[in-house]
Amino acid sequence: MQSEFGRIGKRLFAEGLIGASFGNMSVRSGTGFFITRSGSYLDCPKSPVFVPMDGDVPEDASSEYRVHRAVYRSTDHQAVIHAHPPHAIALSLSCDRIVPMDVEGLTLAPVIPVVVGVCGSDELAGRIARGLQECRVTVARGHGTFAAGKSLDEAYLFTSLAEHSCRILVLAGAYGRRQD
Amino acid sequence: MQSEFGRIGKRLFAEGLIGASFGNMSVRSGTGFFITRSGSYLDCPKSPVFVPMDGDVPEDASSEYRVHRAVYRSTDHQAVIHAHPPHAIALSLSCDRIVPMDVEGLTLAPVIPVVVGVCGSDELAGRIARGLQECRVTVARGHGTFAAGKSLDEAYLFTSLAEHSCRILVLAGAYGRRQD
Amino acid sequence: MQSEFGRIGKRLFAEGLIGASFGNMSVRSGTGFFITRSGSYLDCPKSPVFVPMDGDVPEDASSEYRVHRAVYRSTDHQAVIHAHPPHAIALSLSCDRIVPMDVEGLTLAPVIPVVVGVCGSDELAGRIARGLQECRVTVARGHGTFAAGKSLDEAYLFTSLAEHSCRILVLAGAYGRRQD
Amino acid sequence: MQSEFGRIGKRLFAEGLIGASFGNMSVRSGTGFFITRSGSYLDCPKSPVFVPMDGDVPEDASSEYRVHRAVYRSTDHQAVIHAHPPHAIALSLSCDRIVPMDVEGLTLAPVIPVVVGVCGSDELAGRIARGLQECRVTVARGHGTFAAGKSLDEAYLFTSLAEHSCRILVLAGAYGRRQD
Repeated sequence: MQSEFGRIGKRLFAEGLIGASFGNMSVRSGTGFFITRSGSYLDCPKSPVFVPMDGDVPEDASSEYRVHRAVYRSTDHQAVIHAHPPHAIALSLSCDRIVPMDVEGLTLAPVIPVVVGVCGSDELAGRIARGLQECRVTVARGHGTFAAGKSLDEAYLFTSLAEHSCRILVLAGAYGRRQD
Repeated sequence: MQSEFGRIGKRLFAEGLIGASFGNMSVRSGTGFFITRSGSYLDCPKSPVFVPMDGDVPEDASSEYRVHRAVYRSTDHQAVIHAHPPHAIALSLSCDRIVPMDVEGLTLAPVIPVVVGVCGSDELAGRIARGLQECRVTVARGHGTFAAGKSLDEAYLFTSLAEHSCRILVLAGAYGRRQD
Repeated sequence: MQSEFGRIGKRLFAEGLIGASFGNMSVRSGTGFFITRSGSYLDCPKSPVFVPMDGDVPEDASSEYRVHRAVYRSTDHQAVIHAHPPHAIALSLSCDRIVPMDVEGLTLAPVIPVVVGVCGSDELAGRIARGLQECRVTVARGHGTFAAGKSLDEAYLFTSLAEHSCRILVLAGAYGRRQD
Repeated sequence: MQSEFGRIGKRLFAEGLIGASFGNMSVRSGTGFFITRSGSYLDCPKSPVFVPMDGDVPEDASSEYRVHRAVYRSTDHQAVIHAHPPHAIALSLSCDRIVPMDVEGLTLAPVIPVVVGVCGSDELAGRIARGLQECRVTVARGHGTFAAGKSLDEAYLFTSLAEHSCRILVLAGAYGRRQD
């Protein structure tokens, strides 16, 4: 599993979707999920740690475990990735949802929810989980994307897609005009 | 052939011309062509599949096979690459053709056609094929580039060139003014 | 130690935080510190050289050793990285401090000092050292970031963070308006 | 020598200073110079070919050999690199010289000449050679940089520097205002 995490982490880093040791990812497993460790480089992660659906959480689990837990509790998603794509974050600062103009975005994520809340709070976790029921990717305002799917590959696809769509919006000068 | 596809795919990914498992490429062969599989990462592709010029198409062939087939039917091109270069896509949203300002673009692709149509339709496929008779690279509006040539290397060259020329246009602030 | 320097240098280069042989880094050791050599590529550095806290400096030590020495003298930081992140440098040209809008920046570096002075002067070195007492990263106007921490990994984290926050500010169009 | 060319070519490609098989480089040797082959990928070049200072030129030498020859004839430079850095090219479209605002640019290349002329002409080659007597890097308008120095490493340094300085100018919004 560590090599699967590393394979996707290398792609996230190479595409500029994460920097340094930011970001985290998890895969559902039995009565919980495996998540990357706090401070781990996603492109060369240490072995992920198991977080149960309820109860105590290992100390070195990523501090974003609350969001991942909320997503697994309320959806059927099998994997979750949190990343820091710059164009998606920039757009999220001034809109409540992101409406792609490119064909891939229009097809696969026609309305990307933007949610707000205090980082690490159960309230924000709940909002992200609800966002991921509507769309495979949701942006926490000013913070980053959370994408989910049947596998890490699918969660990565939606992370890359969201940043691509947001970059097109910025380059097309649509930012601040078409978003509302 | 798989290693040739992978060699070019790695370059496309490293230059940011594709992300995740987006994009596809093919090489003409006998009475058809080999194309990358649906959902395959171009930088580490599975073995490409053969698509005949007429008739049934293998289930896991890239869903863009219609465009590739239309190009091989109506031109002498030996290879086709579809990519998602962000500047080319952004420019394509508001113009019917792209006129480069840089010397390489002016020399090798002085008028890059922008075509419209429903993704996956025969109509769009025909328009892209016609575009590739005028210029080695054509942009499907809001979707991405299709480039063709004697080899994957040449199709890659025109993909890279188109994005380079479009990036210069955006950086020079020509976008929205000189395009018409 | 050379491999530790190289590991972090490769990350700085891959993220675009340094180019060519620009940038330098050091780690405190006993009565001085080890610093990269002048003209060395940080992603494949030669063995770093020892600079004592006082007295003569080896000829091939990075010419920025003054800043590193000033930081170690006046703080408890164990490692220092100087890089050239383009968005941070661009923002620094027109403001006295950088105020991030993204959550990571707001949390970890809410006010990033921008200092001025002649490169290579003790005056600038002193100002950077003071900046690094307030925040883990400081920008020398028009020149680049200096980040510090318990380790090279931590100094790298703050370098990456500063560029990320500045890129968000630029993309959000906040540059020239919210900064003062 | 091939491995030296490849080492620098990999860096140029990784920094985004060249794309596809664009760009070329050479090193002075005896009564001529070795230059990359036409159509060669600089990051994995075939063995470079020898071009004498006068007389016939091997068929597969880079078509830019005229510029390289003119530089070696009129200066003491030992190596020349031609690249396609997008920000430098974009800026060159509307100014006759580029004046950096960042400290490295101000120190190492305070006025970067921009020259015009027909690609492949002796006239343009002469202007670039004269530019490289004033500054280690010169931009051919709309085409790309030519940088020179004691070695490929130095020519690469000035290529990277020019793009860095131009990127800062673009990000700082100075483009179209401070340039003249």
